[in-house]
Amino acid sequence: MSLINHQVQLASRPDGEPSIANFRHVQSPVAALQDGQVLVRNHYLSLDPYMRGRMNDAKSYAQPQPLGEVMQGGTAGEVVESRSPKFAVGDKVVGMGVWQEYSVVDGNAVGALRKVDTTRVPLSHYLGAVGMPGVTAWYGLVKIIAPKEGDTVVVSAATGAVGSAFAALAKARGCRVVGIAGGPEKCAYTVGELGFDACIDYKAGQVKEGLRELCPKGVDVYFDNVGGDILDTVLTRITRGARIVICGAISQYNATGAVQGPKNYLSLLVNRARMEGIVVFDYADRYHLAVTEMAGYLKDGRMKSKEDVVQGLEKFPDALLKLFNGENFGKLVLQVTKD
Amino acid sequence: MSLINHQVQLASRPDGEPSIANFRHVQSPVAALQDGQVLVRNHYLSLDPYMRGRMNDAKSYAQPQPLGEVMQGGTAGEVVESRSPKFAVGDKVVGMGVWQEYSVVDGNAVGALRKVDTTRVPLSHYLGAVGMPGVTAWYGLVKIIAPKEGDTVVVSAATGAVGSAFAALAKARGCRVVGIAGGPEKCAYTVGELGFDACIDYKAGQVKEGLRELCPKGVDVYFDNVGGDILDTVLTRITRGARIVICGAISQYNATGAVQGPKNYLSLLVNRARMEGIVVFDYADRYHLAVTEMAGYLKDGRMKSKEDVVQGLEKFPDALLKLFNGENFGKLVLQVTKD
Repeated sequence: MSLINHQVQLASRPDGEPSIANFRHVQSPVAALQDGQVLVRNHYLSLDPYMRGRMNDAKSYAQPQPLGEVMQGGTAGEVVESRSPKFAVGDKVVGMGVWQEYSVVDGNAVGALRKVDTTRVPLSHYLGAVGMPGVTAWYGLVKIIAPKEGDTVVVSAATGAVGSAFAALAKARGCRVVGIAGGPEKCAYTVGELGFDACIDYKAGQVKEGLRELCPKGVDVYFDNVGGDILDTVLTRITRGARIVICGAISQYNATGAVQGPKNYLSLLVNRARMEGIVVFDYADRYHLAVTEMAGYLKDGRMKSKEDVVQGLEKFPDALLKLFNGENFGKLVLQVTKD
Repeated sequence: MSLINHQVQLASRPDGEPSIANFRHVQSPVAALQDGQVLVRNHYLSLDPYMRGRMNDAKSYAQPQPLGEVMQGGTAGEVVESRSPKFAVGDKVVGMGVWQEYSVVDGNAVGALRKVDTTRVPLSHYLGAVGMPGVTAWYGLVKIIAPKEGDTVVVSAATGAVGSAFAALAKARGCRVVGIAGGPEKCAYTVGELGFDACIDYKAGQVKEGLRELCPKGVDVYFDNVGGDILDTVLTRITRGARIVICGAISQYNATGAVQGPKNYLSLLVNRARMEGIVVFDYADRYHLAVTEMAGYLKDGRMKSKEDVVQGLEKFPDALLKLFNGENFGKLVLQVTKD
């Protein structure tokens, strides 16, 4: 083999916003395959908010990303060589991989690679609407929220991969869906393209007024991806028995001091409400149920999977930063090579 | 009738800690009874943390206490005159009343007065272990927590009316109960008298270390009466799937600025944990189940109802302040007159 691999390693732990200095772009030869192994050429790498947390040396639901090793993340690619009976050259596969152009993967490792059908859904969508973010939304809805028809459901980061999937799922269950997104363009998109009932532009600084106007009966369900001031504002408008899913807190991930705690958390008491955290990995055994439902919506148009595709591995970590300043519009993926 | 009533009215809304200037002690003649009415002489008035919140002009689960009217609160007393077929002179009664020596009550008003049996349990305990605080603990345990045998359960304000009832109920269900209380005397009491497995003295400033040592496997359940730093510290030690009941936040009730939000709330995400608020009034239809269970424990010694009895209506609001500086030891009641 004379293939040269391009990789991105974590060189040091970011203090606040990650910068290029925290990473190292390296090249190394791809090892020859052993029996049972598969060589995957990664077409897409998934850029997700949780990656920031794993760069810290802190207890979380997964081990921190080790220093000096290749960055971990979701990958989608194609089998280009196989010494495993389970995979054939040409198979499209997704998995939890690492940031490199070529991956050598044990074909027997449970969950490391999953074959996907790209005749109905494009490969990159398996990193978004029918991948980890979509299943996250599905899990939050089914496991935590159990929405009732007519519930007023609010979701932040509404045009993100999780938020837009959540909205489609909630609409399909008869909920009234109000988004929170940054800027008029994103807001218009949620209503015009994604079928939201309404959307609040947080960058206009009128979240409280927007909730009052657009959710006159209050907020029954809030799916929180952002934390910070927006969570605090929604807490002032929840209804009795409201359910809040804590899925993420992107406004806080680069905080160098203490995280901003929700000072209005006593609204949970007043309203007998519930706030609960979820981690999608807990739901692996029902992943297929989620993917099947969402693939159907993608096909019939009830769900759209807008993507923000950045070309080239060398764009990392700059591409990742788009998540934190709200610059991405749709599911952010890094395209390593053409399908 | 020549009876003179002594009353306490709310004169102005406190900014921070309530003071005597916020209240007015008044005297007025007791009105003659109409058909259907009952005259109750109040023996005990219940001093509870929630009363502070009701002094604010803020949305809560109950209307704010109106200015210029008699303070509302739990009462326990005896029927001294009756024109209702439902109550006889000598009946011991409890209810949600107002701060005065004599109350004229409509005998038909649902829930206004409830006859209680004082042959087994002293009258004042119906304001504590077998009253609203005890039922609060029961509700939190049964409705929100559903503890499993062997769960490590932590409760703050451990010697308070709610905390001590909660501990007895959790012990009866096979949990390991660790309290958080202020000072060595209270801590010794929880273990020596109330049957806690251990207790952490928060005034010694070692809550984190105490939790690490006394809950080595982490905290499965936390029943929070205090909020603030203690809630934040417990959040760092919860286990996967932990359940936190938000019952109160006495450390924050006199805050003049923003409430201190739990900056470690993302521990809910990492641990897939749940935080939920409760209000005991929601449980009125099953009040009797709670009272029956707890009266049994009081009788067989598994529960103790320590009281801190302050004599004289004129001691309000000074007596109330004991709740906020942790000076009370046991359920705080104001004795208006002897049983």
